[in-house]
Amino acid sequence: MRCENPVMNQILDAYKPMWSLNHAISLMGWDFETYMPRKGMEERGVADSQLRMLHKDLLLNKDFVGLVESAKKLGNLSDLEKGIIRVLNREITKQIKIPKDLTEAESLERIRGNMVWREAREKSDFMMYAPHLKKMIEIKKQIVEKIGYERHPYDALLDQFEEELTVDDLDKVFSVLTSRTQKILKKLVDSGSPFCKENKLEKSKYDIQKVDELNHDILTLLQYDMERFRMDVSTHPFTEAMDLNDVRITTRYEGADFKKSISSTIHEAGHALYNLQCDQSLSVTPLEGGSSLALHESQSRFWENIVAEACLLFN
Amino acid sequence: MRCENPVMNQILDAYKPMWSLNHAISLMGWDFETYMPRKGMEERGVADSQLRMLHKDLLLNKDFVGLVESAKKLGNLSDLEKGIIRVLNREITKQIKIPKDLTEAESLERIRGNMVWREAREKSDFMMYAPHLKKMIEIKKQIVEKIGYERHPYDALLDQFEEELTVDDLDKVFSVLTSRTQKILKKLVDSGSPFCKENKLEKSKYDIQKVDELNHDILTLLQYDMERFRMDVSTHPFTEAMDLNDVRITTRYEGADFKKSISSTIHEAGHALYNLQCDQSLSVTPLEGGSSLALHESQSRFWENIVAEACLLFN
Repeated sequence: MRCENPVMNQILDAYKPMWSLNHAISLMGWDFETYMPRKGMEERGVADSQLRMLHKDLLLNKDFVGLVESAKKLGNLSDLEKGIIRVLNREITKQIKIPKDLTEAESLERIRGNMVWREAREKSDFMMYAPHLKKMIEIKKQIVEKIGYERHPYDALLDQFEEELTVDDLDKVFSVLTSRTQKILKKLVDSGSPFCKENKLEKSKYDIQKVDELNHDILTLLQYDMERFRMDVSTHPFTEAMDLNDVRITTRYEGADFKKSISSTIHEAGHALYNLQCDQSLSVTPLEGGSSLALHESQSRFWENIVAEACLLFN
Repeated sequence: MRCENPVMNQILDAYKPMWSLNHAISLMGWDFETYMPRKGMEERGVADSQLRMLHKDLLLNKDFVGLVESAKKLGNLSDLEKGIIRVLNREITKQIKIPKDLTEAESLERIRGNMVWREAREKSDFMMYAPHLKKMIEIKKQIVEKIGYERHPYDALLDQFEEELTVDDLDKVFSVLTSRTQKILKKLVDSGSPFCKENKLEKSKYDIQKVDELNHDILTLLQYDMERFRMDVSTHPFTEAMDLNDVRITTRYEGADFKKSISSTIHEAGHALYNLQCDQSLSVTPLEGGSSLALHESQSRFWENIVAEACLLFN
């Protein structure tokens, strides 16, 4: 992306190494969940935390902050340019408050905790994972105190997923949704709907290779471009975008209830589609990854619940 | 690794982000050859070149160079500490001469050229790759002029693979080897040895999945620890070490002449073994990757030619 304003171009050029660190951090994250030999964990922790600290150094570099500050004062910015400055300014304002040792601690604990969680999940042994969860909550609480908040501590973290959304806002939404959903559920149960009964397909075992082929067939049907996209396997399904032309999803195969695997695949493919359809001119800018988690989730849920479930249930 | 000398510890701490950039660059390289969707090429080029330039910034940072300079003057260093300083000093001396735009150009051309090379190889179409090879040679020639050399231009590049080895040295070795090898070859041909005749196995096709299983069985037989190691598939086989506990090889399946695939696997596994057997105390230091290419190649060739071929031919 090239802008008319030279300050904007200086900002985008200076952002390239930060973008590249994010690219590498995304790839390391994807690899950690898919192919990394498990004993590489400690070294991956060093690499992940160090790259995050380097990113912070570049973002909070005086010259870069100065460029963003001067761009804020410019009156003739386009909407896209304003978006870039807003996103960078938010990131600077937040990162400047979080000390490096917390950035490092969070990165190391996420990696160590995740590795234990995988084994704990396999063994259905929550107590195995509990100390890691406790430690992560402690780290997050420290981060919250550094970032600051007005009413609820979680506001500081919620804002990272959905700009300016607060716990109060969410409570308003969920209080309406909860009571209405409960009414629908009661109606379904009372009417003896088949949706409320166990389906024998939920217990029947499947051949993992066959369901993997089926998932790939579904992606072909949905016209995913395998030159910009791929699917692998992980303990918990996720979408990770390295950039606008390399978006990856994972699915999981538990060996029973094939619908879960198909739903996961379509759900993650929905996330991926949102990334894949971003305007290519946003490539290597702070705006390339989609607007917010709620918009992201609306895309994944649309494909999973509206398109796929409607097809599965009514065809 | 912790040292008695505080300057050495400062150096090792400051080296951590450089090590982490190398880790990420290695992973991006491995991923580029194995799983990356091909249209992610341009963005991967940005990330690779930017991380290499960041690495150069950190290495040539005045404070870091100052630390290495003061360590050079210390009289009480252990052999390991001397090794760290020697390796870092060599890297600083070289990198300071290569301007950033050449570092960037080399990275971008390596990635673009490699992608074209894969297609050209598949089609046996050298002319398709020729312009990229020409461009890379031009870039390398510019780098050579910046690094400088005493007798032969290639000395500047050869030194990166094998410290202080020169073209003159190599000529001495190869002139003896060539004539002696020719004598052995002539003797074999004259004696009508079966080694000089085409073996029908070289043309027979194989089931890729079966040979992949065989390769994995061989790795099990050779007692590779799959928690620190893995094998994937690429156009040209290679070994890439992310760190001492995450070493990866690739092999290739061309669908005919299974011995080639097995040889590649064992050859690369030999390289990997050299990395996997490095002292763990060298982890996250500039010394962790093995001493030199010649030593590396002696390990891979030992397993490929001495152990495996001897077994295959005489058992």
